[in-house]
Amino acid sequence: MISKSQISLVKSLHQKKYRKEHQLFIVEGFKAVSEFLNTDFVINTIFCTPDFSAKVANLSNKQKTYEVSINELEKISALQTPQGILAIVETPKNTPVVANDIEEMVLVLDGVQDPGNLGTIIRTADWFGFSHVICSLDCVEVYNPKVVQATMGSLTRVKVSYQNLEELLTNTELPIYGTLLAGENIFSTKWHPKGFLVLGSEGKGISDELLKLITHPVTIPGGKNTESLNVAIAGAICCAEMSRNKLK
Amino acid sequence: MISKSQISLVKSLHQKKYRKEHQLFIVEGFKAVSEFLNTDFVINTIFCTPDFSAKVANLSNKQKTYEVSINELEKISALQTPQGILAIVETPKNTPVVANDIEEMVLVLDGVQDPGNLGTIIRTADWFGFSHVICSLDCVEVYNPKVVQATMGSLTRVKVSYQNLEELLTNTELPIYGTLLAGENIFSTKWHPKGFLVLGSEGKGISDELLKLITHPVTIPGGKNTESLNVAIAGAICCAEMSRNKLK
Repeated sequence: MISKSQISLVKSLHQKKYRKEHQLFIVEGFKAVSEFLNTDFVINTIFCTPDFSAKVANLSNKQKTYEVSINELEKISALQTPQGILAIVETPKNTPVVANDIEEMVLVLDGVQDPGNLGTIIRTADWFGFSHVICSLDCVEVYNPKVVQATMGSLTRVKVSYQNLEELLTNTELPIYGTLLAGENIFSTKWHPKGFLVLGSEGKGISDELLKLITHPVTIPGGKNTESLNVAIAGAICCAEMSRNKLK
Repeated sequence: MISKSQISLVKSLHQKKYRKEHQLFIVEGFKAVSEFLNTDFVINTIFCTPDFSAKVANLSNKQKTYEVSINELEKISALQTPQGILAIVETPKNTPVVANDIEEMVLVLDGVQDPGNLGTIIRTADWFGFSHVICSLDCVEVYNPKVVQATMGSLTRVKVSYQNLEELLTNTELPIYGTLLAGENIFSTKWHPKGFLVLGSEGKGISDELLKLITHPVTIPGGKNTESLNVAIAGAICCAEMSRNKLK
């Protein structure tokens, strides 16, 4: 059973304004919710259909869990087809990265707008063992339900911070790679073990303020007929390339 | 000015059933529409706001072009923010591929459901110069407006066919690569210049019927903590790897 005020709270979390006000966000699906349990994320409440209550109780008994009907879940879900379980999770504090503390390659996103792209980049970063994604202040918000959904649980392992990128990248001696149309071929680039890889926004690419800070422009060969790759695809191909020698 | 019957026709094309019935689909945005002009695709009608009419007239004067207001375009567009121009295009005939005619590596999609994934795969194939994507009969339909949008015009260059994959892959001596969790490391795989790369669906991976036909199981290294990559990402990383030696 779910109360009217709970319905109204969860539905409000579909919107950025209320996620910010309440410092809460939504995670849906058994796999994703179970990945959020037993991490540093604080689970506020879990709503699940009877099918899932025993499973959830096994995983953790510390959360407030409410059994709800499928109809009730449909009222609060951000998905077209709710997956039987929805958790409300506390938004962690945004902790900006200090350039000098970097010990590996870090993905830096400049104005990425599409929730699916941000989520997929986080999922891909996790796959290749990158532990941090830094977003410009105008990127889509990582706690948007579509982003969370596309990360497939990887948000529990990849740290995501929002900060002023110009400030970050001005204060570093580390190499700053950026995907551009006329850079060094990524297949012959020597990738340093630590530094930054900047990926631009879907529409505009890397902004002028950051372009001038790129020390290592790189290009994915191809594109004879077409002018661009999707940003999550470009990011993934670079991640694979950076991991190539490490993992071979 | 747009008539009521035109509005009703274009809106019906948001649905698969009517795209099939009318053998027509929608393309939106100036860049995409202009890529469809002067190809083998047959443009049925173009609707555009006054800003675009001169530009469209320059590109081609053979199409029936109707000038419409932004409000009218909003009524027929499949986009949240219409881009000032919408074309109705004739669906080309589905031409199944014959395995023996293959002269390069071909991407084969087994049950890919997400329109964004299919569109992104076609766009990526175009970038790397792959000219054909073969879809199983249960893949999402390529003329879905979300797929067309995600291809960013690449649908004009990459041929997409729908066919029985088991039949296709049974009748070939060519290598059949497939991305699996326990295959050869893609970074050390020898990629043949012609053959098939099978990518599985988002939820279930490669189906059992096709699994047994895979002659070269390959794996993208990584995934210590997470179990899978997005299918468009996995496909892109393989495309990059196949192109690596060719393009270096």
